[in-house]
Amino acid sequence: MGLVVQKYGGSSVSDAAAVKRVAQRIVDTKNAGHEVVVVVSAMGDTTDELIDLAQEVSPTPSARELDMLLTAGERISMAVLAMAISDLGHEARSFTGSQAGVITDSAHGKARIIDVTPGRIRTALDGDAIAIVAGFQGVSQDSKDVTTLGRGGSDTTAVALAAALDADVCEIYTDVDGIFTADPRIVPAARRLPRISYEETLEMAACGAKILHLRCVEYARRYGIPIHVRSSFSTLDGTWVIDQNKGSDQTDMEQPIISGVAHDRSEAKITVVGVPDKVGEAAAIFRAVAEAGVNIDMIVQNVSAADTNRTDISFTLPAKDGRAAMDALTAMQAQVGFETLRYDDGVGKVSLIGAGMRSHPGISAKFFSSLADAGVNIEMISTSEIRISVVVRADDVDTAVGAVHRAFDLDVTEVEAVVYGGTGR
Amino acid sequence: MGLVVQKYGGSSVSDAAAVKRVAQRIVDTKNAGHEVVVVVSAMGDTTDELIDLAQEVSPTPSARELDMLLTAGERISMAVLAMAISDLGHEARSFTGSQAGVITDSAHGKARIIDVTPGRIRTALDGDAIAIVAGFQGVSQDSKDVTTLGRGGSDTTAVALAAALDADVCEIYTDVDGIFTADPRIVPAARRLPRISYEETLEMAACGAKILHLRCVEYARRYGIPIHVRSSFSTLDGTWVIDQNKGSDQTDMEQPIISGVAHDRSEAKITVVGVPDKVGEAAAIFRAVAEAGVNIDMIVQNVSAADTNRTDISFTLPAKDGRAAMDALTAMQAQVGFETLRYDDGVGKVSLIGAGMRSHPGISAKFFSSLADAGVNIEMISTSEIRISVVVRADDVDTAVGAVHRAFDLDVTEVEAVVYGGTGR
Repeated sequence: MGLVVQKYGGSSVSDAAAVKRVAQRIVDTKNAGHEVVVVVSAMGDTTDELIDLAQEVSPTPSARELDMLLTAGERISMAVLAMAISDLGHEARSFTGSQAGVITDSAHGKARIIDVTPGRIRTALDGDAIAIVAGFQGVSQDSKDVTTLGRGGSDTTAVALAAALDADVCEIYTDVDGIFTADPRIVPAARRLPRISYEETLEMAACGAKILHLRCVEYARRYGIPIHVRSSFSTLDGTWVIDQNKGSDQTDMEQPIISGVAHDRSEAKITVVGVPDKVGEAAAIFRAVAEAGVNIDMIVQNVSAADTNRTDISFTLPAKDGRAAMDALTAMQAQVGFETLRYDDGVGKVSLIGAGMRSHPGISAKFFSSLADAGVNIEMISTSEIRISVVVRADDVDTAVGAVHRAFDLDVTEVEAVVYGGTGR
Repeated sequence: MGLVVQKYGGSSVSDAAAVKRVAQRIVDTKNAGHEVVVVVSAMGDTTDELIDLAQEVSPTPSARELDMLLTAGERISMAVLAMAISDLGHEARSFTGSQAGVITDSAHGKARIIDVTPGRIRTALDGDAIAIVAGFQGVSQDSKDVTTLGRGGSDTTAVALAAALDADVCEIYTDVDGIFTADPRIVPAARRLPRISYEETLEMAACGAKILHLRCVEYARRYGIPIHVRSSFSTLDGTWVIDQNKGSDQTDMEQPIISGVAHDRSEAKITVVGVPDKVGEAAAIFRAVAEAGVNIDMIVQNVSAADTNRTDISFTLPAKDGRAAMDALTAMQAQVGFETLRYDDGVGKVSLIGAGMRSHPGISAKFFSSLADAGVNIEMISTSEIRISVVVRADDVDTAVGAVHRAFDLDVTEVEAVVYGGTGR
């Protein structure tokens, strides 16, 4: 018996029938003796439809007003979800981000949570009610304006509320059974991870895995909130995202060396060709890109050719920011004196993630061998303490992911396949 | 130069193009040197669509949650309207009912305004911004829950804000040119009233005229707010609803005797046949109807027949409440001892309204003669100081309205017809 925060995304509440199904699930949790706080996103495609409406009216809508508009989406879903729960005989009360005490800064469209003061939620729980909270939104501390948290916002709302209410668990409901060792659409033999550390989850999210957003996992790690990622279509256990260094019984099973293989096709590569090999040239290039508001990912600088004293610098960035970065670099060509720019959006990134890498040598060697054996050419490499990433041709991504997954014995066994069968993965 | 509150209904902001047109009109008012506060309803059919969604999820949705749901509609319209105004080069800031300081009681779905504390609106105006306020909604004083004001709510919001801000005028925009002497769909020769008193407007609203809601006019009368009912499709003057007893230049033209002819087809008639003529029987009947939550309108009790000592009692009521009233009466038949009930929804009400009736004798005689000459049979009669209403067959309503309109010389003259031509009436 404890306090459970559940988060349901837009696909879990896409229409009236789905809302009723989710309501039943919430009531089941309540009937099991828990206090329940539910965070809900806007129904189905509502947010996209509202953005389309804004675009029809204004090519560059005011950020404050766009936030006001978009928050209508959660207002609709939370109200109908509360209605559906009432029909099942439990009191449910819906709360906007502001009413739930989600206090943010004033950065409309990408506000950060400053504080959570869930007094009204606590009162509702004390009155035996189920609290339904609008995800993705808050109210700014200074101007009391409605704000939105940006991408992954509802997950962050859920974890922030779980922390403020000292919840036992934050359950994130999705349309898959949990976090897998690879994307099951690419690797049918991918297996569900019963548990994974915050650090590995952060690396997977940063490397293109779509299940949890970075901010949400960072928040959970900071406050030690266990996240349970699970399917809204089954009652099976999903994946627990937890602190695996904690001295709890969670460490009594041997930690796997490798958690999984992530991939990302949303990046592009820019190569600045023939940069004069002088102090400060690279800094000038990356400052220009940063000033254009572009976050870069991997960077490779070749050794200078002895005869020309010039070098090439390659880096990856989100493909959507490609235009902005190229414009910024073109504008400084004369100043820096580089020869030309190359833009390549036919790349993909494949990453191997595992906390066990720290203590197991030979991981890199096996990783590169598996790619070589599969005939995949590596264009760039970057590593962290618990991750190796490579940039390859986009066409090679599927082959690379499958090869690496097999090489590290991540493929599901036949016994496990029976267990996982028919869970709607 | 002054403070103008403008209210636009759902049909004025039905889509992106309509929103942009309204934005231009608002900016024109601002550019003319006025401070502008805009109250807006939900776009087009949004409210009906949200009600349908609620019905899909729950047959009897919680009143609190239904209010939370419906207020999403104005949130959308006000945000996109603010965006459209920004694009025209003026700052616009949208405010929910709560942010605008519309404080209500806790009667969800039909909340009454208790207080208006428009501090944030005043601040926005002082900062040279246009304030956009969600109509139809407020926040409850006790529980800080979101409430809605019920039918006509946005008009009431506009008048209440106009009163709190000491506005010079409250402009109610609609799809006709103002208030007419009769419904132009029935009487093509109906003429626009340049001005009308609060009292007459209240009578017209109570008698079925659809332009302004009772609550809004009552509020305006109490605080002396001039209402200007006008078309959102033209810049012509509409109808000014004002206090015609005030010693201003508004009284320098002779006040017309008759303001107009209203009609209402939404009522039904119930006749309780053979009620024993004893003290307290009528009271018992009407108490039962009231306890069923039904408001009755006109009542007629016949003189008892001397041979039976029994009488018939007829009354009219909204046809939508017919079932509830019949059930309540049937349940008390044995107790009261009446003979039978007759239900008739084939009736209509025709009313003649004019403040000048007070001082001009002979109005009733002319009214009844005109109906008799047109061959219309009168079933019930009721009068007030400035109104005469009759119940006739529903099929006779058009004939009756036209005949009365002509008899009192309300038909537009040929010269006036040219003036009104082509205004999109």
